[in-house]
Amino acid sequence: MPTNTKRWVLASRPEGKPKLENFRLEDVTLPDPGEHEILIRTEFHSVDPGMRGRLSGDSYTAALPVGETIDSAMVGIVEASNNEKFRIGDRVTGGFGWVSHALSNGRGVQILSPEIYHGRLRPSAAIGVLGIPGLTSYFGLLDLGKPKESDTVLISSAAGPVGATVGQIARMKGCKVVGIAGSKAKCDYLRGLGFDATINYHEAGDMRATMKNVCPEGVDVYFDNVGGAMLDAAILNMKEHGRIVVSGQVSEYNRGPDELVGIRNVTRFITHRLRMEGLVVFDYFKGFRDAQAAMAAWIHSGQLQYTEDISEGIEGSAAAFVGLFEGENLGRRLIKVS
Amino acid sequence: MPTNTKRWVLASRPEGKPKLENFRLEDVTLPDPGEHEILIRTEFHSVDPGMRGRLSGDSYTAALPVGETIDSAMVGIVEASNNEKFRIGDRVTGGFGWVSHALSNGRGVQILSPEIYHGRLRPSAAIGVLGIPGLTSYFGLLDLGKPKESDTVLISSAAGPVGATVGQIARMKGCKVVGIAGSKAKCDYLRGLGFDATINYHEAGDMRATMKNVCPEGVDVYFDNVGGAMLDAAILNMKEHGRIVVSGQVSEYNRGPDELVGIRNVTRFITHRLRMEGLVVFDYFKGFRDAQAAMAAWIHSGQLQYTEDISEGIEGSAAAFVGLFEGENLGRRLIKVS
Repeated sequence: MPTNTKRWVLASRPEGKPKLENFRLEDVTLPDPGEHEILIRTEFHSVDPGMRGRLSGDSYTAALPVGETIDSAMVGIVEASNNEKFRIGDRVTGGFGWVSHALSNGRGVQILSPEIYHGRLRPSAAIGVLGIPGLTSYFGLLDLGKPKESDTVLISSAAGPVGATVGQIARMKGCKVVGIAGSKAKCDYLRGLGFDATINYHEAGDMRATMKNVCPEGVDVYFDNVGGAMLDAAILNMKEHGRIVVSGQVSEYNRGPDELVGIRNVTRFITHRLRMEGLVVFDYFKGFRDAQAAMAAWIHSGQLQYTEDISEGIEGSAAAFVGLFEGENLGRRLIKVS
Repeated sequence: MPTNTKRWVLASRPEGKPKLENFRLEDVTLPDPGEHEILIRTEFHSVDPGMRGRLSGDSYTAALPVGETIDSAMVGIVEASNNEKFRIGDRVTGGFGWVSHALSNGRGVQILSPEIYHGRLRPSAAIGVLGIPGLTSYFGLLDLGKPKESDTVLISSAAGPVGATVGQIARMKGCKVVGIAGSKAKCDYLRGLGFDATINYHEAGDMRATMKNVCPEGVDVYFDNVGGAMLDAAILNMKEHGRIVVSGQVSEYNRGPDELVGIRNVTRFITHRLRMEGLVVFDYFKGFRDAQAAMAAWIHSGQLQYTEDISEGIEGSAAAFVGLFEGENLGRRLIKVS
């Protein structure tokens, strides 16, 4: 029996910050699953600042064609299966985007293990703390940041799903952890997660001086989700041999090639022997299972907390995405579709 | 018997590019060496773009006080010795600056080994290809650049003493080597050293496009001596997992903190998993002897060439330094003092 479904498509290419009018919700009737196919009903899909690149395209990412479904991760339930690997009722993740249902041949679809996803670990965690954001935190901090005990770790966009996880892992490694966020509520949240100090950048004034006050001995690891002037201020506060992890550049995503802000203080890389490195978490694919197991254990033991910011209803997906660039969210922003 | 000597001092603090008037040549009478002291007669001293930071001071380097002797490396002959470690006639290196003679207690003074410094290896090489510039090339390229066979290595300020050595070592490692320099004569010189290709930046126009033409498959290692717009253009030509070695930033040295150019394309660090790292060669101090032995062997076997741009007479030291920022030199610029 054909299924009536909804999906969000790119209506027009955004310039600068994305707007609601760049997106359109469509009704689609999906046929019954064909040979080897499964039908998945979405429970949750994500909205990520990092999706911004795909909407315009850049030197690296091909632009999503106008009219195509918006990309994202989702978690859902198998409702029909002609594929022996999947049973009706299996809970799965896949990259099907902002859709209420998806048809798939099963490639790239992972079944969630009930042994992991129970208690403190909700199924939605599969596209959050155990998904791309959490894995980015894990590998970015541990592989590139290389934190040592007593290091000072500074994190921008710290109340986001990547930053909050970075901070908690750094705490477990014995670091002093300082989070930068955009409101008192977010800073309070970070203190609740065990951050040693926070900076509310709306009230900080001169970021370089504020960082200096909060990290008087300098910064060993700067985990950057923001870029631009905040990165430049952090560079001026790095200790010798400090490591900068370029995880996100949310202040740059809505800028054209000629509008990028970037950084000025490259000479500091010499005088202070700084290292700056970017990551795409898929490079660590072979380590995903071990990382997820480690993080799941921390969550079950109560050492690692995660926060979700859930909107109800697929009708709100575009507004939830647009709001990311206004700093609305605290924790992982998800859409509860069904 | 007291010795009549000459030394250059900082007459006034330069703003922007250094000028002749910022320096003053003084006559000084040195007393006889005291207990444990030696008197060294300078044969050669160096002038380096990297000395610019010391003249103004920056966040890292204390400013040289006005009236003090200009810093640099020198090589000379022991003319008198009250120190049992040194004999008259020993050839030594030390950091005594732009002086015709120096008194020293011997700390930091190295005796040149006649077994190494003969034939193709002139004594002046001790403050060039086997000194700070050559060691910077060696450790910067090998430890930070990590070139692999068939990698493309792009080098800015390639006809300078650091760049020319980097290119030749990269060639020995089986890399494709591309040098950027500021004149046809310098590019011809680089081809003579075995560089695979060169870019004359005065004729290149759009550097990003020119680099793309010369390195169509992208750049694995960018060894940067220049910074600013050239670094930014190189970033746009880096391959995935490319390494940027920040060795010098000569385009930035004469700029104040508010005038720095820096780079715009930090988002590339994510999409292309780039790594950028700066070095101060003294961090590799323990490896200096092995590196010097390796490079000396390459020089004696004819695999590594070095070029010196020698001005005669200490009276010309300041002009030789000022000229560095006009791109005058090809190879290591030295002053032959005696």
